Amino acid sequence: MTRQPTDQGPATDDGFHVFDTTLRDGAQREGINLTVADKLTIARHLDDFGVSFIEGGWPGANPRDTEFFARAREEITFRNAQLVAFGATRRAGAKAAEDPQVRALLDSGAPVITLVAKAHDRHVELALRTTLDENLEMVRDTVSHLREQGRRVFVDCEHFFDGYRANPAYAKAVVRAAAEAGADVVVLCDTNGGMLPAQIQAVVSTVLAETGARLGIHAQDDTGCAVANTLAAVDAGATHVQCTANGYGERVGNANLFPVVAALELKYDKRVLPVGALAEMTRISHAIAEVVNLTPSTHQPYVGVSAFAHKAGLHASAIKVDPDLYQHIDPESVGNTMRMLVSDMAGRASVELKGKELGIDLGGDRELIGRVVDRVKERELKGYSYEAADASFELLLRAEVQGRVPGYFRTESWRAIVEDRPDGSHANEATVKLWVKGERIVATAEGNGPVNALDRAMRVALERFYPALAKLELVDYKVRILEGRHGTESTTRVLITTGDGRGEWSTVGVADNVIAASWQALEDAYTYGLIRAGVEPTE
Amino acid sequence: MTRQPTDQGPATDDGFHVFDTTLRDGAQREGINLTVADKLTIARHLDDFGVSFIEGGWPGANPRDTEFFARAREEITFRNAQLVAFGATRRAGAKAAEDPQVRALLDSGAPVITLVAKAHDRHVELALRTTLDENLEMVRDTVSHLREQGRRVFVDCEHFFDGYRANPAYAKAVVRAAAEAGADVVVLCDTNGGMLPAQIQAVVSTVLAETGARLGIHAQDDTGCAVANTLAAVDAGATHVQCTANGYGERVGNANLFPVVAALELKYDKRVLPVGALAEMTRISHAIAEVVNLTPSTHQPYVGVSAFAHKAGLHASAIKVDPDLYQHIDPESVGNTMRMLVSDMAGRASVELKGKELGIDLGGDRELIGRVVDRVKERELKGYSYEAADASFELLLRAEVQGRVPGYFRTESWRAIVEDRPDGSHANEATVKLWVKGERIVATAEGNGPVNALDRAMRVALERFYPALAKLELVDYKVRILEGRHGTESTTRVLITTGDGRGEWSTVGVADNVIAASWQALEDAYTYGLIRAGVEPTE
Repeated sequence: MTRQPTDQGPATDDGFHVFDTTLRDGAQREGINLTVADKLTIARHLDDFGVSFIEGGWPGANPRDTEFFARAREEITFRNAQLVAFGATRRAGAKAAEDPQVRALLDSGAPVITLVAKAHDRHVELALRTTLDENLEMVRDTVSHLREQGRRVFVDCEHFFDGYRANPAYAKAVVRAAAEAGADVVVLCDTNGGMLPAQIQAVVSTVLAETGARLGIHAQDDTGCAVANTLAAVDAGATHVQCTANGYGERVGNANLFPVVAALELKYDKRVLPVGALAEMTRISHAIAEVVNLTPSTHQPYVGVSAFAHKAGLHASAIKVDPDLYQHIDPESVGNTMRMLVSDMAGRASVELKGKELGIDLGGDRELIGRVVDRVKERELKGYSYEAADASFELLLRAEVQGRVPGYFRTESWRAIVEDRPDGSHANEATVKLWVKGERIVATAEGNGPVNALDRAMRVALERFYPALAKLELVDYKVRILEGRHGTESTTRVLITTGDGRGEWSTVGVADNVIAASWQALEDAYTYGLIRAGVEPTE
Repeated sequence: MTRQPTDQGPATDDGFHVFDTTLRDGAQREGINLTVADKLTIARHLDDFGVSFIEGGWPGANPRDTEFFARAREEITFRNAQLVAFGATRRAGAKAAEDPQVRALLDSGAPVITLVAKAHDRHVELALRTTLDENLEMVRDTVSHLREQGRRVFVDCEHFFDGYRANPAYAKAVVRAAAEAGADVVVLCDTNGGMLPAQIQAVVSTVLAETGARLGIHAQDDTGCAVANTLAAVDAGATHVQCTANGYGERVGNANLFPVVAALELKYDKRVLPVGALAEMTRISHAIAEVVNLTPSTHQPYVGVSAFAHKAGLHASAIKVDPDLYQHIDPESVGNTMRMLVSDMAGRASVELKGKELGIDLGGDRELIGRVVDRVKERELKGYSYEAADASFELLLRAEVQGRVPGYFRTESWRAIVEDRPDGSHANEATVKLWVKGERIVATAEGNGPVNALDRAMRVALERFYPALAKLELVDYKVRILEGRHGTESTTRVLITTGDGRGEWSTVGVADNVIAASWQALEDAYTYGLIRAGVEPTE
């Protein structure tokens, strides 16, 4: 991030909330399965981006979310966001103060709690199996209890819009109960996602006028209108928007954080993020996609690689005269770039910014920056992706700036064997042949997998020369198969995250098979780790 | 198609137009490159679906589009749609009757012609390089000429909304010129896609009131609001919507035909398609994606495979009571189906529903369902994930219900070797030892990676016994490393998607290394493929 560090408090005021629920509602998306480490990484990205609130999960509902809150408190110093725990109103017929689920919300240590409450009469009866009055009492009791314990409380009114259609008086009664008990924001949820903007606007206006509560909006995208529905609610007076990165969420998904904040900042001229954050949007969108292991959507508004791609022809000459004639915003404002031909996303500005971020001053050297951009484009065309592989990018940058990469060893060849035995056990064996300080080293090791065996063989070969390697540890490992183009074979991209106890870094490898791609990423990981450790290069 | 054949005339009246421009504007999408045969196939699908107009391209602008119109006239008998040729107003300073580009539009034989006209003063000056008056004359002359030649004419006012902001009087003058010269519909285009619904609605209302012209809307999706923008224009009185299948189009794309017509039919109760056509929507969306060679979006509203997929265990029991509580429409109404995702949040209800979905009746057998739930939980604890691996889940279910999984082969052992040679090339070799129908088979194959080599060795071993395997193809492959818990080694999860030309299925494998996990997923993929093919089990 290039923007200035902010004061202790949040970077934006409390008058308007950008509330992110990627880690809770976004994780409901089919195909997403987050580890605690993934959640921590995403939370850091979202805090960097400058959202006001990060809903981290449902502590107590499953051990993963409980662990996330414990680790987030210890491991992350939030600069912009406040952490939010999600949970439900107390059980019918019990007391909030004695409800273990409510207790777990407090135990999470989150300063803000979002409570989900039923606002649709049929859901109260069929899903909660309690009376309409008891449901109101559950809202009041739980909100009051959490407020007494010093927490800020938001209330999500589930199925609000369907409920409002069925029984408007009851839906409004839930809003009033929540607000009167001390909820700061009452969030109207289009849980089934069936609404259209005109309906949202009408209902939010009426509820605001009749209850006077501070209102938020939570829209699902089942009609393809979640972004517009969110903005319609803002038009009607909502001052709290719940979104997810890249629109991840159950079924079709949730309102996409990125086009929502871009519209608010660029179309409404409303400041909802810290200064400079919007220009990081494309990078952050792609980085989060990498963490959840989904291909970033090429056609996502504002941040997709195609979002400002112009097919040459009709427009080309006019675009040269004035790009504003053919673009609704300046792509740089969201960290994206205009493209006239098939190319990648790297632009001069982002390379320069990235260099600055890594502490490598490119000093506005146009020729050097141009060379780096060309190199990135050439590599990304082959399938490399530097968005989530900072360390490999830094090595590439150093190679261009210093004319060479610091080298610690040279690979002659390697071999990995995986064998499944009749008894069901596996043998994994790898042999590496390396040159170090003029010596040829041949080393063999076994591992719990072929990449692990290669990793160990590499250590056997190198640790004698570089004892610092003992501290390095493989933290995460991701593989993606990239579609072959024009009849070529498909290629494999591996992202490896390595740690040394003080920090973590990510490297990328691309090859025709998973083991070879892993080897490349391992080579970068070791080289980068030795640079970090301050070891003098020898090759 | 299950609906009844209609009369000769269009199936819907002329009062509201669903105008599709997939073949013209949709083809501008990065990555789409249509042959004439592709265009003819898509035109047939769109006619089946029952759109009112199909814009086929720009005859005369390129030979492909000229050929399309010639062949479409000969080869397709349209039941619902009329074919539309797209072109520009005549050149400045010439006569429409003498303009070869205008001539080509007439030569196409299309009964309807859409003319693109500039409506933004700066574009007239900078892109057309003519005067504002001459541009109006170009509109009048070209529309009149085409009307005299017996064609119906629509006029697309390019950059209308940006132009309206810059010079509203001129933008309206273009609308009036088109309408007065005989254009049936004047289409207001948000060419740069930067508008939001409230802006669209305000401008369309004003232009309608002040010009009295019949108005249409053409929205690009750069703010993520194209569907909502299209509906906002309808709210304001537009009676002609221009869309593309699956939202294909330049940059981010166009207004997506499917959520637009679904909203009109299901939310507005407006009949815009022939009776029964909406129930074909999912099939047609996927079929068109196949023709343009893009993977159908899993998360597309209404038609995505995830659009009615429910994950949260919380909801499953209530869904059993009443699915309407958790769905904004009946999925069958758009030809889609509800799916229950089995995950570690799953309870009995979701397993039972899932069984029903797969055609395996668990008959409310509480003991059996409990066993399946236990088995899923136990496997998911080891790292399996059935949410994205329906086929593996079905095999698990069959094993519990039938006491055994249909078997086609038994694995004795296998081995994979990956070698990086000093020249940088790779060798991948795999050997499998299998038992089939009492015979022991040893087979070796090379591949472009170790999993590919195993896959090929397996085929070498099995295809003699099961020729149906030749049809199976690896479609997608994903790898995830799962964190080790409490000091155990980390495990690897592999998800494989396999296809047989008729459909696709996904399988999962979990093991201590990527190759062994891949092998498991391959075993499931082959077993499931053979069950699908109706092959009798032998083991």
